[in-house]
Amino acid sequence: MQAEIITIGDEILIGQIVDTNSAFLGKEFNKYGISIYQITSVQDDKAHILKAIEEAEENADIIIITGGLGPTKDDITKLTICEYFNDSLVEDKAVLENVEQIFSKYSAAPLLEVNKQQALVPSTAQVLMNYNGTAPGMWLERNGKVFVSLPGVPYEMKALITEQVIPKLRAKFKFPYIMHKTLLTYGLGESALAERIENWENHLPVFIKLAYLPSLGRVRLRLSAKAAERTVVEKEIEKQINLLLPQIEDVFVGYEEDESIEAVIGHQLTEKGLTLATAESCTGGNIAKLITANAGASTYFKGSVVTYATEAKIKILKVSERDVHTHSVVSKAVAETMARNVRTLFDTDYGISTTGNAGPDKGDSDAEVGTVWIAIATKDKIYSEVFNFGNLREKVIGRATNKAFEMLQKEITKKHKKK
Amino acid sequence: MQAEIITIGDEILIGQIVDTNSAFLGKEFNKYGISIYQITSVQDDKAHILKAIEEAEENADIIIITGGLGPTKDDITKLTICEYFNDSLVEDKAVLENVEQIFSKYSAAPLLEVNKQQALVPSTAQVLMNYNGTAPGMWLERNGKVFVSLPGVPYEMKALITEQVIPKLRAKFKFPYIMHKTLLTYGLGESALAERIENWENHLPVFIKLAYLPSLGRVRLRLSAKAAERTVVEKEIEKQINLLLPQIEDVFVGYEEDESIEAVIGHQLTEKGLTLATAESCTGGNIAKLITANAGASTYFKGSVVTYATEAKIKILKVSERDVHTHSVVSKAVAETMARNVRTLFDTDYGISTTGNAGPDKGDSDAEVGTVWIAIATKDKIYSEVFNFGNLREKVIGRATNKAFEMLQKEITKKHKKK
Repeated sequence: MQAEIITIGDEILIGQIVDTNSAFLGKEFNKYGISIYQITSVQDDKAHILKAIEEAEENADIIIITGGLGPTKDDITKLTICEYFNDSLVEDKAVLENVEQIFSKYSAAPLLEVNKQQALVPSTAQVLMNYNGTAPGMWLERNGKVFVSLPGVPYEMKALITEQVIPKLRAKFKFPYIMHKTLLTYGLGESALAERIENWENHLPVFIKLAYLPSLGRVRLRLSAKAAERTVVEKEIEKQINLLLPQIEDVFVGYEEDESIEAVIGHQLTEKGLTLATAESCTGGNIAKLITANAGASTYFKGSVVTYATEAKIKILKVSERDVHTHSVVSKAVAETMARNVRTLFDTDYGISTTGNAGPDKGDSDAEVGTVWIAIATKDKIYSEVFNFGNLREKVIGRATNKAFEMLQKEITKKHKKK
Repeated sequence: MQAEIITIGDEILIGQIVDTNSAFLGKEFNKYGISIYQITSVQDDKAHILKAIEEAEENADIIIITGGLGPTKDDITKLTICEYFNDSLVEDKAVLENVEQIFSKYSAAPLLEVNKQQALVPSTAQVLMNYNGTAPGMWLERNGKVFVSLPGVPYEMKALITEQVIPKLRAKFKFPYIMHKTLLTYGLGESALAERIENWENHLPVFIKLAYLPSLGRVRLRLSAKAAERTVVEKEIEKQINLLLPQIEDVFVGYEEDESIEAVIGHQLTEKGLTLATAESCTGGNIAKLITANAGASTYFKGSVVTYATEAKIKILKVSERDVHTHSVVSKAVAETMARNVRTLFDTDYGISTTGNAGPDKGDSDAEVGTVWIAIATKDKIYSEVFNFGNLREKVIGRATNKAFEMLQKEITKKHKKK
């Protein structure tokens, strides 16, 4: 039982957008035992779309088509699918109502004829109601195969997949159990690692695949297993990992979780009833933004002060002018004052701060581009560390943010252990 | 003259990584007039790779294959390409030297047999030396078609493409001139926009394609033209834009020069010597984060207060408790106080604020999920607007952020016009 993804849109082929939909689909489908055989990205071109669907139908039982469902002339997916199925378009009343509702609720613009046409669907299609947009999802079947057409807007597509497509697929087909387990290793090259575990790898059962994913000083080892029975898969993966671990003890650092570190921090803080505030300079709000992207953040996150200008650090976070003059604004003293005072200002358990120079030019400080101080304040203590994250702005902001989360998580876990 | 991209690796199909290589290739190739016909992502599986190359060869003259060139067992691209060309592997001395150099320079690990095998290449391949890694790029030709195999590591692939592949392709083929010009519009839905410019769109010459790219409250209009002569393309695009602009004057905000609205705002503020501070609630630091992603932001951006908790709004931004009780924390009164007081706090020309409910649960307010107030304060005035951005957290944050930028840019431009 395999699936194929077809993503439609010139913007993908000219590189105007990165196709993140396919990665989402791959991950979600794998959770439920649905393998993706191929991902194909094609232009908004009728002949090409028809050919792609035809080829996908040869290889797969489930064909997921995203994109090209907008109301404007360049979007031709619906008409093309209609042609593929020798079908004709009919108006779906429920979709029309949904379109009207979306317009009356969210749009100041009048409902145009072209918007109403969003309610036209192939007569043999089952509608997957899209409550987040005007283009409905469509589910068609032929010779036991399923064709699903979804809008390309990521949040519309995601909601349709998790709420409607996957439940419907699971009701229709029986999927095997797929499990991926990824081990993080640091400090050994992929070929040295491969040589060391060669014997183990050669004796893996056929239904387990091993992949080496090297990236900037670390190698991820991914074990993938697929079988009809969940228990078989889980037992065998566990057995193989138990055989592997003693051989890589010195370089193994943990398993790769699906969850971001800020989500993990959120769970920990919620569970312990602890709170957090952040004071950001060089990270410019990125830490707060990532924390608040998680639903329920208001339980543990009280807020942030982004003191980009030095005078704001002095005025709002009571950084001392003398420290700024003596040590510069990128310094241990300033970072620690920021963390301490933001914790007091928001009255939280943890305060975390960043001050650094993200480049490309030196800012209010003489510190070398890439220098970042990160401080953590708790009720009992304040400490900080300094890093150099190189000279690409995006990289400095990203790495400073990750490092701040890493330090915070260590601190929370420490506290946790003590209790 | 068309190209196809084949990306190889299970990690793409299971969604463990997002395929950013394809977007890079699409963008780079388009710059030089090379259209991408299709992008195909396939598993590390011999039969599947062979089939994908065969199909690509039917459609395209240039086939770019990335990934699967590592030294470990799971990477089989090189052997598969060798089979496709009925060729055999031979050791390339220069590649071997490169591998040895990389190991002696960057690696503490000994050079293993498996690393030396990176120097084996199909006998008919031209080597594209990879100075950033041990897997060489390979260039093969058959029946006038070009096949290029490249490592999947993004920075290795990118260097090979820009430094070697594109120059070699341009020496071998003559490409037409391709031009994309993208206009940013805010505040009018894609269908309303399409209706307004329908007549213009219907009279576009056949070699110009128009696409509507809607995203979180804004619509990008992309014009794409392709012709043998650069001057023809440039002249026609200019002519069409001159016809279009008067019709979209009220919603047009600028061209996308790979430039975001926050970057445009940054230029405008810098030029006028004006400054900005933000007070964010539901956007959680996202506005500040996007502003500070731009180099030079410290010239015009003084900082932000992310008052996620109601008590922080009261304490730091002096929101009145009575307003919170009477109007709720998601209200015109609270938004306007936040904007006014953050402007005073940071002593800036503009203050902008957001307060809303991003969901999924109602927070400190009874406002419906998706409700967001956005306020702008200047020296002379304060005003605000209310929106409902739906009930998906990611969408509410994204649309509120974009709308705040849109309102701010209109305000800055207004000021500009008056002068």
